[in-house]
Amino acid sequence: MTGERTRGTERGPGRPREERVTGAVLNAVVDLVVEQGMGALTMDAVAARAGVSKPAIYRRWPTKQDLVIAAAESRVGELSVPDLGDFRAELRVVLTTRLEAYRLPGSARLIAGLIGAAAEAGPGRAQYAQYTERITSETRHILERGIARGDVRPDTDVRAAATLVAAPLLFRLIGEQELPDARLVETLVDLVARAVGSAS
Amino acid sequence: MTGERTRGTERGPGRPREERVTGAVLNAVVDLVVEQGMGALTMDAVAARAGVSKPAIYRRWPTKQDLVIAAAESRVGELSVPDLGDFRAELRVVLTTRLEAYRLPGSARLIAGLIGAAAEAGPGRAQYAQYTERITSETRHILERGIARGDVRPDTDVRAAATLVAAPLLFRLIGEQELPDARLVETLVDLVARAVGSAS
Repeated sequence: MTGERTRGTERGPGRPREERVTGAVLNAVVDLVVEQGMGALTMDAVAARAGVSKPAIYRRWPTKQDLVIAAAESRVGELSVPDLGDFRAELRVVLTTRLEAYRLPGSARLIAGLIGAAAEAGPGRAQYAQYTERITSETRHILERGIARGDVRPDTDVRAAATLVAAPLLFRLIGEQELPDARLVETLVDLVARAVGSAS
Repeated sequence: MTGERTRGTERGPGRPREERVTGAVLNAVVDLVVEQGMGALTMDAVAARAGVSKPAIYRRWPTKQDLVIAAAESRVGELSVPDLGDFRAELRVVLTTRLEAYRLPGSARLIAGLIGAAAEAGPGRAQYAQYTERITSETRHILERGIARGDVRPDTDVRAAATLVAAPLLFRLIGEQELPDARLVETLVDLVARAVGSAS
Protein backbone atom coordinates (compact mmCIF):
# COMPACT_ATOMS: atom_id res chain seq x y z
CA MET A 1 0.00 0.00 0.00
CA THR A 2 3.00 2.34 -0.26
CA GLY A 3 3.47 4.67 -3.18
CA GLU A 4 1.61 4.84 -6.44
CA ARG A 5 2.10 2.32 -9.21
CA THR A 6 4.80 3.37 -11.60
CA ARG A 7 5.57 1.58 -14.80
CA GLY A 8 9.03 1.10 -16.15
CA THR A 9 10.73 2.52 -13.08
CA GLU A 10 11.60 0.46 -10.06
CA ARG A 11 11.32 2.56 -6.96
CA GLY A 12 12.29 0.97 -3.71
CA PRO A 13 13.34 -2.59 -3.10
CA GLY A 14 9.75 -3.93 -3.16
CA ARG A 15 9.04 -3.35 -6.82
CA PRO A 16 10.98 -6.15 -8.56
CA ARG A 17 9.75 -8.72 -6.04
CA GLU A 18 6.18 -7.51 -6.52
CA GLU A 19 6.44 -8.06 -10.26
CA ARG A 20 8.08 -11.42 -9.82
CA VAL A 21 5.21 -12.57 -7.60
CA THR A 22 2.61 -11.32 -10.05
CA GLY A 23 4.28 -13.08 -12.94
CA ALA A 24 4.72 -16.33 -11.02
CA VAL A 25 1.10 -16.38 -9.87
CA LEU A 26 -0.45 -15.58 -13.25
CA ASN A 27 1.78 -18.14 -14.97
CA ALA A 28 0.73 -20.70 -12.37
CA VAL A 29 -2.95 -19.97 -13.03
CA VAL A 30 -2.51 -20.29 -16.79
CA ASP A 31 -0.51 -23.52 -16.43
CA LEU A 32 -3.01 -25.11 -14.05
CA VAL A 33 -6.03 -24.30 -16.21
CA VAL A 34 -4.29 -25.30 -19.43
CA GLU A 35 -3.01 -28.58 -18.03
CA GLN A 36 -5.82 -29.62 -15.71
CA GLY A 37 -8.81 -27.36 -16.26
CA MET A 38 -10.71 -24.89 -14.11
CA GLY A 39 -11.63 -27.64 -11.65
CA ALA A 40 -7.97 -27.83 -10.59
CA LEU A 41 -7.73 -24.12 -9.89
CA THR A 42 -7.68 -23.72 -6.12
CA MET A 43 -5.83 -21.04 -4.19
CA ASP A 44 -3.78 -23.83 -2.59
CA ALA A 45 -2.72 -25.21 -5.96
CA VAL A 46 -1.84 -21.77 -7.28
CA ALA A 47 0.21 -20.92 -4.17
CA ALA A 48 2.09 -24.22 -4.35
CA ARG A 49 2.81 -23.93 -8.04
CA ALA A 50 3.84 -20.28 -7.89
CA GLY A 51 5.89 -20.77 -4.73
CA VAL A 52 4.20 -17.91 -2.91
CA SER A 53 1.99 -17.71 0.16
CA LYS A 54 -1.78 -17.68 -0.07
CA PRO A 55 -2.01 -14.30 1.70
CA ALA A 56 0.30 -12.86 -0.97
CA ILE A 57 -2.22 -14.01 -3.58
CA TYR A 58 -5.33 -12.87 -1.72
CA ARG A 59 -3.77 -9.46 -1.16
CA ARG A 60 -3.62 -8.86 -4.92
CA TRP A 61 -6.60 -10.90 -6.12
CA PRO A 62 -9.30 -11.25 -3.48
CA THR A 63 -11.32 -13.83 -5.42
CA LYS A 64 -10.65 -16.69 -7.82
CA GLN A 65 -12.60 -14.70 -10.40
CA ASP A 66 -10.12 -11.79 -10.07
CA LEU A 67 -7.28 -14.24 -10.52
CA VAL A 68 -8.68 -15.90 -13.64
CA ILE A 69 -9.43 -12.56 -15.27
CA ALA A 70 -5.92 -11.33 -14.51
CA ALA A 71 -4.47 -14.52 -15.98
CA ALA A 72 -6.59 -14.19 -19.13
CA GLU A 73 -5.63 -10.54 -19.36
CA SER A 74 -1.95 -11.49 -19.27
CA ARG A 75 -2.62 -13.20 -22.61
CA VAL A 76 -5.45 -11.15 -24.06
CA GLY A 77 -5.07 -7.66 -22.72
CA GLU A 78 -5.53 -4.05 -23.71
CA LEU A 79 -4.07 -3.03 -27.03
CA SER A 80 -2.70 0.19 -28.40
CA VAL A 81 -2.55 0.55 -32.16
CA PRO A 82 -0.70 3.55 -33.61
CA ASP A 83 -2.32 5.65 -36.31
CA LEU A 84 -1.35 3.87 -39.52
CA GLY A 85 -3.34 6.24 -41.71
CA ASP A 86 -5.59 3.39 -42.81
CA PHE A 87 -8.45 1.64 -40.98
CA ARG A 88 -7.87 -1.71 -42.69
CA ALA A 89 -4.24 -1.77 -41.61
CA GLU A 90 -5.16 -0.93 -38.03
CA LEU A 91 -7.93 -3.54 -37.99
CA ARG A 92 -5.42 -6.12 -39.22
CA VAL A 93 -3.13 -5.27 -36.29
CA VAL A 94 -5.97 -5.78 -33.79
CA LEU A 95 -7.06 -9.11 -35.27
CA THR A 96 -3.51 -10.42 -35.76
CA THR A 97 -2.59 -9.60 -32.16
CA ARG A 98 -5.64 -11.49 -30.91
CA LEU A 99 -4.94 -14.35 -33.30
CA GLU A 100 -1.47 -14.80 -31.84
CA ALA A 101 -2.81 -14.92 -28.29
CA TYR A 102 -5.64 -17.31 -29.18
CA ARG A 103 -3.19 -19.65 -30.88
CA LEU A 104 -1.06 -20.05 -27.76
CA PRO A 105 -1.45 -23.53 -26.28
CA GLY A 106 -4.37 -23.69 -23.88
CA SER A 107 -5.97 -20.35 -24.71
CA ALA A 108 -9.26 -22.02 -25.65
CA ARG A 109 -9.42 -23.84 -22.33
CA LEU A 110 -8.46 -20.72 -20.38
CA ILE A 111 -11.03 -18.49 -22.07
CA ALA A 112 -13.81 -21.08 -22.04
CA GLY A 113 -13.06 -21.70 -18.37
CA LEU A 114 -13.29 -17.99 -17.69
CA ILE A 115 -16.64 -17.79 -19.48
CA GLY A 116 -18.03 -20.75 -17.54
CA ALA A 117 -16.73 -19.41 -14.23
CA ALA A 118 -18.08 -15.93 -14.92
CA ALA A 119 -21.57 -17.36 -15.41
CA GLU A 120 -21.42 -18.74 -11.86
CA ALA A 121 -19.76 -15.70 -10.30
CA GLY A 122 -22.91 -13.83 -9.30
CA PRO A 123 -21.99 -10.21 -8.64
CA GLY A 124 -18.46 -10.99 -9.92
CA ARG A 125 -19.93 -11.24 -13.41
CA ALA A 126 -19.59 -7.48 -13.75
CA GLN A 127 -15.80 -7.81 -13.56
CA TYR A 128 -15.86 -10.05 -16.60
CA ALA A 129 -17.95 -7.51 -18.51
CA GLN A 130 -15.42 -4.84 -17.55
CA TYR A 131 -12.61 -7.03 -18.83
CA THR A 132 -14.45 -7.41 -22.15
CA GLU A 133 -14.86 -3.64 -22.23
CA ARG A 134 -11.10 -3.18 -21.81
CA ILE A 135 -10.09 -5.66 -24.49
CA THR A 136 -12.50 -4.24 -27.05
CA SER A 137 -11.72 -0.58 -26.37
CA GLU A 138 -8.95 -0.22 -28.93
CA THR A 139 -11.26 -1.45 -31.67
CA ARG A 140 -13.74 1.29 -30.81
CA HIS A 141 -10.82 3.71 -30.87
CA ILE A 142 -9.64 2.75 -34.38
CA LEU A 143 -13.24 2.91 -35.62
CA GLU A 144 -13.58 6.44 -34.24
CA ARG A 145 -10.22 7.40 -35.72
CA GLY A 146 -11.38 6.01 -39.06
CA ILE A 147 -14.56 8.07 -38.90
CA ALA A 148 -12.51 11.20 -38.15
CA ARG A 149 -10.06 10.31 -40.93
CA GLY A 150 -12.83 9.52 -43.39
CA ASP A 151 -12.19 5.87 -44.24
CA VAL A 152 -14.91 4.60 -41.89
CA ARG A 153 -18.55 5.51 -42.54
CA PRO A 154 -19.68 8.36 -40.30
CA ASP A 155 -22.95 6.58 -39.46
CA THR A 156 -21.16 3.52 -38.05
CA ASP A 157 -22.52 2.16 -34.77
CA VAL A 158 -19.09 1.95 -33.16
CA ARG A 159 -20.06 -0.35 -30.32
CA ALA A 160 -21.87 -2.84 -32.56
CA ALA A 161 -19.02 -2.78 -35.07
CA ALA A 162 -16.49 -3.45 -32.27
CA THR A 163 -18.59 -6.45 -31.22
CA LEU A 164 -18.60 -7.63 -34.84
CA VAL A 165 -14.79 -7.39 -34.87
CA ALA A 166 -14.16 -9.08 -31.52
CA ALA A 167 -16.57 -11.98 -31.76
CA PRO A 168 -15.65 -14.15 -34.78
CA LEU A 169 -12.12 -15.24 -33.80
CA LEU A 170 -13.40 -16.22 -30.36
CA PHE A 171 -16.36 -18.07 -31.86
CA ARG A 172 -14.04 -19.99 -34.18
CA LEU A 173 -11.85 -20.91 -31.20
CA ILE A 174 -14.49 -21.68 -28.57
CA GLY A 175 -17.68 -22.50 -30.45
CA GLU A 176 -16.27 -24.21 -33.52
CA GLN A 177 -13.36 -25.62 -31.48
CA GLU A 178 -10.84 -24.82 -34.16
CA LEU A 179 -7.74 -22.62 -34.09
CA PRO A 180 -8.38 -19.45 -36.09
CA ASP A 181 -5.66 -18.75 -38.65
CA ALA A 182 -4.18 -15.90 -40.68
CA ARG A 183 -6.49 -16.66 -43.58
CA LEU A 184 -9.54 -16.11 -41.39
CA VAL A 185 -8.04 -12.82 -40.21
CA GLU A 186 -7.60 -11.64 -43.81
CA THR A 187 -11.16 -12.67 -44.65
CA LEU A 188 -12.49 -10.83 -41.61
CA VAL A 189 -10.48 -7.72 -42.51
CA ASP A 190 -12.16 -7.76 -45.93
CA LEU A 191 -15.64 -8.40 -44.51
CA VAL A 192 -15.45 -5.79 -41.75
CA ALA A 193 -13.81 -3.19 -43.98
CA ARG A 194 -16.68 -3.57 -46.47
CA ALA A 195 -19.20 -3.43 -43.62
CA VAL A 196 -17.94 -0.15 -42.15
CA GLY A 197 -15.69 1.35 -44.81
CA SER A 198 -16.77 4.54 -46.52
CA ALA A 199 -17.21 4.12 -50.26
CA SER A 200 -14.25 5.81 -51.88
CA MET B 1 -35.55 -49.39 -28.85
CA THR B 2 -38.68 -50.26 -30.83
CA GLY B 3 -39.40 -48.69 -34.17
CA GLU B 4 -37.74 -45.79 -35.89
CA ARG B 5 -38.26 -42.24 -34.81
CA THR B 6 -41.21 -40.67 -36.48
CA ARG B 7 -42.12 -37.04 -36.21
CA GLY B 8 -45.65 -35.77 -36.03
CA THR B 9 -47.17 -39.23 -35.93
CA GLU B 10 -47.62 -41.23 -32.78
CA ARG B 11 -47.20 -44.89 -33.50
CA GLY B 12 -47.69 -47.27 -30.65
CA PRO B 13 -48.36 -46.45 -27.05
CA GLY B 14 -44.67 -45.72 -26.30
CA ARG B 15 -44.29 -42.60 -28.38
CA PRO B 16 -46.15 -39.98 -26.34
CA ARG B 17 -44.47 -41.17 -23.13
CA GLU B 18 -41.08 -41.00 -24.83
CA GLU B 19 -41.67 -37.39 -25.80
CA ARG B 20 -42.99 -36.53 -22.36
CA VAL B 21 -39.84 -37.90 -20.75
CA THR B 22 -37.60 -36.01 -23.15
CA GLY B 23 -39.43 -32.77 -22.51
CA ALA B 24 -39.43 -33.23 -18.74
CA VAL B 25 -35.72 -34.03 -18.62
CA LEU B 26 -34.60 -31.17 -20.86
CA ASN B 27 -36.80 -28.71 -18.98
CA ALA B 28 -35.32 -29.97 -15.71
CA VAL B 29 -31.78 -29.42 -17.03
CA VAL B 30 -32.58 -25.89 -18.18
CA ASP B 31 -34.31 -25.05 -14.89
CA LEU B 32 -31.47 -26.41 -12.76
CA VAL B 33 -28.76 -24.56 -14.67
CA VAL B 34 -30.75 -21.34 -14.86
CA GLU B 35 -31.64 -21.38 -11.16
CA GLN B 36 -28.53 -22.88 -9.60
CA GLY B 37 -25.78 -23.10 -12.20
CA MET B 38 -23.84 -25.93 -13.78
CA GLY B 39 -22.48 -27.00 -10.41
CA ALA B 40 -25.98 -28.15 -9.43
CA LEU B 41 -26.41 -30.29 -12.51
CA THR B 42 -26.11 -33.89 -11.38
CA MET B 43 -27.93 -36.85 -12.86
CA ASP B 44 -29.61 -37.33 -9.46
CA ALA B 45 -30.90 -33.77 -9.42
CA VAL B 46 -32.16 -34.01 -13.01
CA ALA B 47 -33.92 -37.32 -12.32
CA ALA B 48 -35.58 -35.94 -9.18
CA ARG B 49 -36.69 -32.74 -10.85
CA ALA B 50 -37.96 -34.43 -13.99
CA GLY B 51 -39.63 -37.25 -12.07
CA VAL B 52 -37.96 -39.96 -14.14
CA SER B 53 -35.46 -42.68 -13.33
CA LYS B 54 -31.73 -42.23 -13.86
CA PRO B 55 -31.59 -45.21 -16.26
CA ALA B 56 -34.26 -43.49 -18.38
CA ILE B 57 -31.95 -40.50 -18.63
CA TYR B 58 -28.74 -42.44 -19.28
CA ARG B 59 -30.46 -44.44 -22.00
CA ARG B 60 -31.06 -41.28 -24.01
CA TRP B 61 -28.08 -39.14 -22.96
CA PRO B 62 -25.11 -41.25 -21.87
CA THR B 63 -23.12 -38.30 -20.51
CA LYS B 64 -23.82 -35.00 -18.78
CA GLN B 65 -22.30 -33.31 -21.82
CA ASP B 66 -24.93 -34.94 -24.07
CA LEU B 67 -27.62 -33.74 -21.73
CA VAL B 68 -26.44 -30.13 -21.59
CA ILE B 69 -26.08 -29.95 -25.36
CA ALA B 70 -29.58 -31.38 -25.82
CA ALA B 71 -30.95 -28.83 -23.35
CA ALA B 72 -29.18 -25.95 -25.11
CA GLU B 73 -30.43 -27.29 -28.44
CA SER B 74 -34.00 -27.23 -27.13
CA ARG B 75 -33.57 -23.45 -26.97
CA VAL B 76 -31.04 -22.76 -29.72
CA GLY B 77 -31.51 -25.42 -32.33
CA GLU B 78 -31.43 -25.93 -36.05
CA LEU B 79 -33.29 -23.43 -38.16
CA SER B 80 -35.00 -23.56 -41.48
CA VAL B 81 -35.56 -20.28 -43.30
CA PRO B 82 -37.76 -20.30 -46.40
CA ASP B 83 -36.58 -18.59 -49.56
CA LEU B 84 -37.76 -15.00 -49.12
CA GLY B 85 -36.19 -13.83 -52.36
CA ASP B 86 -33.85 -11.52 -50.42
CA PHE B 87 -30.71 -12.29 -48.41
CA ARG B 88 -31.22 -9.41 -45.97
CA ALA B 89 -34.71 -10.61 -45.09
CA GLU B 90 -33.48 -14.16 -44.54
CA LEU B 91 -30.56 -12.95 -42.44
CA ARG B 92 -33.00 -10.96 -40.30
CA VAL B 93 -35.03 -14.14 -39.68
CA VAL B 94 -31.91 -16.01 -38.52
CA LEU B 95 -30.76 -13.25 -36.18
CA THR B 96 -34.23 -12.51 -34.81
CA THR B 97 -34.82 -16.18 -34.05
CA ARG B 98 -31.54 -16.35 -32.14
CA LEU B 99 -32.29 -13.07 -30.40
CA GLU B 100 -35.56 -14.44 -29.05
CA ALA B 101 -33.85 -17.55 -27.67
CA TYR B 102 -30.97 -15.58 -26.15
CA ARG B 103 -33.41 -13.25 -24.42
CA LEU B 104 -35.20 -16.09 -22.60
CA PRO B 105 -34.40 -16.00 -18.88
CA GLY B 106 -31.24 -17.92 -18.08
CA SER B 107 -29.98 -18.41 -21.64
CA ALA B 108 -26.69 -16.67 -20.83
CA ARG B 109 -26.05 -18.94 -17.88
CA LEU B 110 -27.03 -22.04 -19.84
CA ILE B 111 -24.80 -21.23 -22.82
CA ALA B 112 -21.86 -20.01 -20.73
CA GLY B 113 -22.17 -23.16 -18.64
CA LEU B 114 -22.13 -25.28 -21.77
CA ILE B 115 -19.01 -23.48 -23.01
CA GLY B 116 -17.23 -23.97 -19.69
CA ALA B 117 -18.26 -27.61 -19.47
CA ALA B 118 -17.22 -28.31 -23.06
CA ALA B 119 -13.71 -27.03 -22.29
CA GLU B 120 -13.40 -29.72 -19.63
CA ALA B 121 -15.08 -32.49 -21.59
CA GLY B 122 -11.99 -33.94 -23.25
CA PRO B 123 -13.12 -36.08 -26.19
CA GLY B 124 -16.68 -34.82 -25.61
CA ARG B 125 -15.56 -31.45 -26.93
CA ALA B 126 -16.18 -32.67 -30.45
CA GLN B 127 -19.90 -32.97 -29.68
CA TYR B 128 -20.01 -29.30 -28.83
CA ALA B 129 -18.31 -28.43 -32.14
CA GLN B 130 -20.90 -30.57 -33.93
CA TYR B 131 -23.67 -28.71 -32.14
CA THR B 132 -22.17 -25.41 -33.31
CA GLU B 133 -22.03 -26.82 -36.81
CA ARG B 134 -25.74 -27.64 -36.69
CA ILE B 135 -26.87 -24.27 -35.37
CA THR B 136 -24.83 -22.32 -37.95
CA SER B 137 -25.78 -24.49 -40.92
CA GLU B 138 -28.83 -22.49 -41.98
CA THR B 139 -26.73 -19.32 -42.18
CA ARG B 140 -24.38 -21.06 -44.59
CA HIS B 141 -27.44 -22.17 -46.52
CA ILE B 142 -28.91 -18.67 -46.91
CA LEU B 143 -25.48 -17.36 -47.93
CA GLU B 144 -25.23 -20.00 -50.63
CA ARG B 145 -28.78 -19.29 -51.75
CA GLY B 146 -27.88 -15.60 -51.92
CA ILE B 147 -24.86 -16.37 -54.08
CA ALA B 148 -27.03 -18.44 -56.42
CA ARG B 149 -29.70 -15.73 -56.44
CA GLY B 150 -27.16 -12.96 -57.01
CA ASP B 151 -27.62 -10.76 -53.94
CA VAL B 152 -24.58 -12.21 -52.14
CA ARG B 153 -21.10 -11.73 -53.62
CA PRO B 154 -19.95 -14.86 -55.43
CA ASP B 155 -16.49 -14.68 -53.82
CA THR B 156 -17.92 -14.85 -50.28
CA ASP B 157 -16.13 -17.20 -47.88
CA VAL B 158 -19.36 -18.81 -46.70
CA ARG B 159 -17.94 -20.42 -43.58
CA ALA B 160 -16.21 -17.24 -42.38
CA ALA B 161 -19.30 -15.17 -43.14
CA ALA B 162 -21.46 -17.61 -41.15
CA THR B 163 -19.08 -17.23 -38.21
CA LEU B 164 -19.36 -13.44 -38.58
CA VAL B 165 -23.17 -13.77 -38.40
CA ALA B 166 -23.31 -16.19 -35.48
CA ALA B 167 -20.76 -14.63 -33.17
CA PRO B 168 -21.83 -11.06 -32.29
CA LEU B 169 -25.17 -11.77 -30.54
CA LEU B 170 -23.47 -14.41 -28.42
CA PHE B 171 -20.55 -12.10 -27.64
CA ARG B 172 -22.97 -9.37 -26.58
CA LEU B 173 -24.77 -11.87 -24.32
CA ILE B 174 -21.83 -13.77 -22.86
CA GLY B 175 -18.79 -11.50 -23.17
CA GLU B 176 -20.41 -8.10 -22.70
CA GLN B 177 -22.98 -9.59 -20.29
CA GLU B 178 -25.82 -7.64 -21.82
CA LEU B 179 -29.04 -8.80 -23.47
CA PRO B 180 -28.83 -8.23 -27.22
CA ASP B 181 -31.83 -6.35 -28.59
CA ALA B 182 -33.71 -5.75 -31.83
CA ARG B 183 -31.66 -2.64 -32.53
CA LEU B 184 -28.45 -4.67 -32.49
CA VAL B 185 -30.05 -7.17 -34.86
CA GLU B 186 -30.94 -4.39 -37.32
CA THR B 187 -27.42 -2.96 -37.10
CA LEU B 188 -25.91 -6.41 -37.70
CA VAL B 189 -28.21 -6.97 -40.67
CA ASP B 190 -26.89 -3.73 -42.18
CA LEU B 191 -23.25 -4.52 -41.41
CA VAL B 192 -23.34 -8.10 -42.66
CA ALA B 193 -25.38 -7.22 -45.74
CA ARG B 194 -22.76 -4.61 -46.68
CA ALA B 195 -19.97 -7.09 -45.94
CA VAL B 196 -21.28 -9.84 -48.21
CA GLY B 197 -23.90 -8.17 -50.40
CA SER B 198 -23.24 -7.83 -54.09
CA ALA B 199 -23.12 -4.22 -55.23
CA SER B 200 -26.34 -3.58 -57.10
